[in-house]
Amino acid sequence: MEAYFDNSATTKPSDEVVKAMLEALTIYYGNPSSLHRKGVAVEKLIKTSRKQLAKALGVKDEEIIFTSGGTESNNAAILGTVAAKKRKGNKIITTRIEHPSVLNVFKSLEAKEYEVVYLDVNREGKIDLNQLEQELDAQTILLSIMHVNNEVGTLQPIGEVRKMLERSNSKAIFHVDAVQSFGKLRFNPAKLGIDLLSISGHKVHGPKGIGALYVKKDLQLTPIAYGGGQEIGIRPGTENVPGILGLGAAASTIEEKIEVHISKMDTLRNRLKEGILSEIQDVIINGSINNESAPHILNVSFFGIRGEVLLHMLEQDNIYVSTGSACSSKKSSQSHVLKAMGLTDQEIEGAVRFSFSYENTIEEVDYGLSRLKKHVQELRKIMKR
Amino acid sequence: MEAYFDNSATTKPSDEVVKAMLEALTIYYGNPSSLHRKGVAVEKLIKTSRKQLAKALGVKDEEIIFTSGGTESNNAAILGTVAAKKRKGNKIITTRIEHPSVLNVFKSLEAKEYEVVYLDVNREGKIDLNQLEQELDAQTILLSIMHVNNEVGTLQPIGEVRKMLERSNSKAIFHVDAVQSFGKLRFNPAKLGIDLLSISGHKVHGPKGIGALYVKKDLQLTPIAYGGGQEIGIRPGTENVPGILGLGAAASTIEEKIEVHISKMDTLRNRLKEGILSEIQDVIINGSINNESAPHILNVSFFGIRGEVLLHMLEQDNIYVSTGSACSSKKSSQSHVLKAMGLTDQEIEGAVRFSFSYENTIEEVDYGLSRLKKHVQELRKIMKR
Repeated sequence: MEAYFDNSATTKPSDEVVKAMLEALTIYYGNPSSLHRKGVAVEKLIKTSRKQLAKALGVKDEEIIFTSGGTESNNAAILGTVAAKKRKGNKIITTRIEHPSVLNVFKSLEAKEYEVVYLDVNREGKIDLNQLEQELDAQTILLSIMHVNNEVGTLQPIGEVRKMLERSNSKAIFHVDAVQSFGKLRFNPAKLGIDLLSISGHKVHGPKGIGALYVKKDLQLTPIAYGGGQEIGIRPGTENVPGILGLGAAASTIEEKIEVHISKMDTLRNRLKEGILSEIQDVIINGSINNESAPHILNVSFFGIRGEVLLHMLEQDNIYVSTGSACSSKKSSQSHVLKAMGLTDQEIEGAVRFSFSYENTIEEVDYGLSRLKKHVQELRKIMKR
Repeated sequence: MEAYFDNSATTKPSDEVVKAMLEALTIYYGNPSSLHRKGVAVEKLIKTSRKQLAKALGVKDEEIIFTSGGTESNNAAILGTVAAKKRKGNKIITTRIEHPSVLNVFKSLEAKEYEVVYLDVNREGKIDLNQLEQELDAQTILLSIMHVNNEVGTLQPIGEVRKMLERSNSKAIFHVDAVQSFGKLRFNPAKLGIDLLSISGHKVHGPKGIGALYVKKDLQLTPIAYGGGQEIGIRPGTENVPGILGLGAAASTIEEKIEVHISKMDTLRNRLKEGILSEIQDVIINGSINNESAPHILNVSFFGIRGEVLLHMLEQDNIYVSTGSACSSKKSSQSHVLKAMGLTDQEIEGAVRFSFSYENTIEEVDYGLSRLKKHVQELRKIMKR
């Protein structure tokens, strides 16, 4: 049996996605900017994909910009906003637990004239709205807060953040990295009062190399690249047609089946969580334990064990998990997320992330749990010698 | 019969490319940054693709950075260089006939503190080395010259430009947009003395949404985006694995068969050129008429005819051509390339670009020529009434 529990690192493209991409590669290979019908046909397909994604988010078609992925969406949103608003203020706010594609953009802006604030999080990985309230001022031009944390699944109170923005003096633009929440939670960026929202294809059974940025109508955004004017000039370059059609297909599946998916992922995660808590000693669940968490991520610290060793033992049984996020897994440094949450070194060292997809099954969870239990016992015996 | 003569806009992905991509989508879907073997397997495949591309260019593997396409490669090269060298000088030089993804980056830098020089071209679309010599000085930090022009196929004297750089006082970084020369000419960026070289996947029967940047070893380049550190930090974001594997497959084909491809494209272009010159009156060939031209592009002005009208008549016969470049074809403005070459309004209006691939056949050329002749005669009759 195989159990791929690393769906927050990346997902397997669905059959519908592969089919759409194959058509783009073999039939609809024209350049959408070409004047002849080989171009016009492709332009129409891009329009359909944009509509599919807009529908899944509940926003207008023209508010969707296709990018090369979540990292580019985050960069375009943050750098594009500070460039557009540089005369309005120099304070920018984010959290300590963002993805590197947000955090490292903010760090790069520290070196420039910007005053950067990193909001703390509590033991559950949640920001403190009071701290945010104190920091928000007339100089604040950007607030970037992730929706669901990629390592622990904690959900931030996006709606309350918007309300606080309304109450404050600040006219800050509100960017949300929704890479780990799209397809995992039903939400509408327009209704939540979000100005800019980042999405990635390969986290939702779409392809790698494609993402999107929701840009609220009439919002000013300076492009971070220049070229032939595609994607209303914000994201030039010949469109990644296979990627766009793949993301469209993935969005269409989300739109149709998200409730079923959420319920399934929630069941699987809870089953593994309960199993671990009842069958394995000396563990803690990291992140929010209530409903303020995404349905697909379970982060567990196994005391006395190195997460990486457990990962490689599980791998021998065709069970795939991760320690931190994939993006920083190869660096030897500790998880900045778990550290910001105040975990001890031992807790951080023993942390393993299980991340689910609607494709996973109860059988896989049960298989995973039984192997996990065995390996944890073995490893702890070795440690005791 | 169908004749797709718009290969400079985009090419059809080859069977080898589609196969490689399909494997990436269905089997090798892991995240290359993951520690388990689903990640490690993908990391190895990316390494192989990098090797394939490096080999096709005759450079070192570690000098290849994968990007999302030619536009991003050009932006990363130009913006990355001016950011890295901003204390060394403020003069940057390019030509009047670059692709928008070079030209519009330079225009954006005009608005900043940079002195921008646009080199003129002659009637054949070639730069004047004397003008370049006069402009090069100690303040010049960047020189960006395209290898093959995308509208007329003219080849710039890259080797002589490097020699002039050596003779001058300038320590300018030399960037070459090779989107239209890779796979169409055999060249080696290291031997030509190029520091940065841009490549696009979809112009060489690879996929859209992928490109590469050759970065000479030890060259300083400031990233234009920040994130998880992929592609030695210059191009972060989860790797576009299907795109990278597709580009690797395309590069492998180029490495093996480029001489055959060049010879074939040259034969097809010459056949159409000779056919047009001998069978259709009142035409001129735009661009270099000697060997200083790429083998795959033929740009012809038909007097008294609007290129766009001819394009749509040919389309009815399943013959696909373009007027200017695809990237600017939807804008009503005149071709900036033909204008810089000094063509008259009538010559610009009547211009059509035929661009070939090794997949085209002599039969397609003969079919295209016969329909072309018929339509030109008809259109001219209508005009005379």
